Amino acid sequence: MIDIDPERLLRDLHALRSFGAVGDGVVRTAFSPVDMEARDWLVGRMTDAGLAASIDGVGNVIGRTDGSTRALLLGSHTDTQPTGGWLDGALGVIYGLEIARAFGETGGSPDIGIDIASWMDEEGTHFSCLGSRSFCGEFTDDELAASESVQGESIGSLLRRAGLTDRPRSVLDRDRHLGYLEAHIEQGPFLEQSGHRIGVVTSIVGVRDFVLRFHGSQNHAGTTPMNLRRDAGMAAITVAHGLDAMLAASAREATVWTVGDIGFLPGAASIVPGEAHLHLQVRDGDEAFLDDVSRAVIAHVEEFDRTAAVDVELASLPDSVGAVDMDARIQEHCAAAAEALVPGGWMRMQSGAAHDAQILATKLASGMIFVPSIGGVSHDFQEDTSADDIVLGCQVMAAAVDAIVKDPAKQ
Amino acid sequence: MIDIDPERLLRDLHALRSFGAVGDGVVRTAFSPVDMEARDWLVGRMTDAGLAASIDGVGNVIGRTDGSTRALLLGSHTDTQPTGGWLDGALGVIYGLEIARAFGETGGSPDIGIDIASWMDEEGTHFSCLGSRSFCGEFTDDELAASESVQGESIGSLLRRAGLTDRPRSVLDRDRHLGYLEAHIEQGPFLEQSGHRIGVVTSIVGVRDFVLRFHGSQNHAGTTPMNLRRDAGMAAITVAHGLDAMLAASAREATVWTVGDIGFLPGAASIVPGEAHLHLQVRDGDEAFLDDVSRAVIAHVEEFDRTAAVDVELASLPDSVGAVDMDARIQEHCAAAAEALVPGGWMRMQSGAAHDAQILATKLASGMIFVPSIGGVSHDFQEDTSADDIVLGCQVMAAAVDAIVKDPAKQ
Repeated sequence: MIDIDPERLLRDLHALRSFGAVGDGVVRTAFSPVDMEARDWLVGRMTDAGLAASIDGVGNVIGRTDGSTRALLLGSHTDTQPTGGWLDGALGVIYGLEIARAFGETGGSPDIGIDIASWMDEEGTHFSCLGSRSFCGEFTDDELAASESVQGESIGSLLRRAGLTDRPRSVLDRDRHLGYLEAHIEQGPFLEQSGHRIGVVTSIVGVRDFVLRFHGSQNHAGTTPMNLRRDAGMAAITVAHGLDAMLAASAREATVWTVGDIGFLPGAASIVPGEAHLHLQVRDGDEAFLDDVSRAVIAHVEEFDRTAAVDVELASLPDSVGAVDMDARIQEHCAAAAEALVPGGWMRMQSGAAHDAQILATKLASGMIFVPSIGGVSHDFQEDTSADDIVLGCQVMAAAVDAIVKDPAKQ
Repeated sequence: MIDIDPERLLRDLHALRSFGAVGDGVVRTAFSPVDMEARDWLVGRMTDAGLAASIDGVGNVIGRTDGSTRALLLGSHTDTQPTGGWLDGALGVIYGLEIARAFGETGGSPDIGIDIASWMDEEGTHFSCLGSRSFCGEFTDDELAASESVQGESIGSLLRRAGLTDRPRSVLDRDRHLGYLEAHIEQGPFLEQSGHRIGVVTSIVGVRDFVLRFHGSQNHAGTTPMNLRRDAGMAAITVAHGLDAMLAASAREATVWTVGDIGFLPGAASIVPGEAHLHLQVRDGDEAFLDDVSRAVIAHVEEFDRTAAVDVELASLPDSVGAVDMDARIQEHCAAAAEALVPGGWMRMQSGAAHDAQILATKLASGMIFVPSIGGVSHDFQEDTSADDIVLGCQVMAAAVDAIVKDPAKQ
């Protein structure tokens, strides 16, 4: 049995919260100075816990149990959204730290250790899930350096600015890593509304991102007759409204879609916008449905481009992620641990949010555990989870880890 | 006859263009350092032309013919849009300078002079038509200081930063000022498309500005079911689309409307926007129609607020301006001058753009003359007018000024 220390767990979570704290929330976007400071702090805490810890060539913090030939990997991310909550990502990393520490204190296991990771930039400030993608071998060094960030910078330049160029990148070792387990806040209302305290994740939805750019003609809003306008702004509003109606008509029960950003240039009251952009995101658990949706979005945009005075250009972001199922055996270990600690108080559920586990699951047997989000709120300063639920989540995860480590052959 | 010097006119226009030049355009927003430098330069040019010139307490540059008891006022503005053209406003100010200079060179008139003005902030970077409003007595000193700029700063604070606090404000003197005449680029396509070189303005349209603010709930775009969302962004898109359809159905022939700006907070791909805003502007020559439109916009917004999950708040900007007619006698003098210089090559027309003349016309007999805008483009770096049209416009205005000054009793 791995006996975690609730007070130490909460103390470390609050210590990490102090890096970038703003009111109740946290601003610790990937690669920012405070994000790198938090990573240095985490290396120290991992070292104190007896792990061999370092920051790798993309900024992942990796802690390894020395002397073990095999290891169960636990992790999540310590970077946040631009105005993020204190638990998103941080919770799963500190769970890993506490479980590895408690595991070491009880003598561990003769040849199976626990490795832990804080993956770089899960939130996509520069490149969504950059750290876990790197770990899973998605890029050669050259491909990585040449990749373009959301901000338009090359990842090579970003890594140089962060002083990471000379460090090796950690990569998945199939001989060593027997599975991956990630805990996370739910970020939605289902656990709270149904009165459950633990979610065992069955699958993670796929995401399709579309960036639309509208090219019209900038002109004076008082002197340009309506029939002579090429108004990029009204084109963006019309297309957003049309896509929303199309998606509402074709959505499955759990499909969600969001126009999360829009902007006009120059963006002044008395000027017909010459340029505009919008960002549409669609999520669903069924890859085939998402492919159908993508085709329909593209057709809608092409039809508008063909018939309207404004030109529209569609670019899908390169970091869309596919829907994946969680490993059945890891799910069973998590379910058994939850049932033992909170009988009848847990549920199986889909994850509507993307996670590093979505990347890991393409290469390694993976699982996830959720704890409730108060009011379903996340990606917001008000995000929170009760201390009791935080502690219970770590206890359930520790019990699942204990079972997996004792029974590695089944993975 | 007032014999203007075409080369001197163009030289001064290009000299003014150099203040804030960016490529073919100009960035010289009101109260910016380069705007204040241009005003100092203008004081120098007016002084060289024999006028008593100074910057007043709101930043207006005023040049007066000393020794005259009465004067015809000519003017426009030297501030620009954030990415403005080189002629918008500047043209009318330099016309005034050249005409006053040429008038002085020919001996002027025994008791009627020419006063000229560059009004502060016609473009509304801080407060639309601040200078001409001040001149027309719209504010006491206390009201002026307490007024809030578009940026949320008090005008008192703005004037202190500009070092203008201790200067007197110039005000309209009904015993002195016998009328106001302003030349401007058309900023629209009508003159060019109809093959006319001069426009004599009959009226200036009224403007109604609406700022809408949407208050929803920020949340995760993957984990928040559609039926639980309070999406401020999609609310803004829906209302913008609905208002556009409503205005298209009720518009008169020359009505124009524009959603010139929109924004979501926090504005990220994976976050349901918690806040949004948009700016709607409607222009028409009929005040009663604009009042009807305003009531319909307010009703539409109130209905959405009442029925939708997102709250909407509507604030009309305080600087909306009413439609005004140009003075009939000044129109006749301008028409006669145009017909003499370019027979059949001029037209009467409405101004779709707001101008300082719209403020002056509420207090003083006022008129406007337009010259063509190439391609109808304005409020853009590409804004331009041919040198021939620039010179012709000044000659027509000079002839009109000559006629008005010789026949002041008729004003």
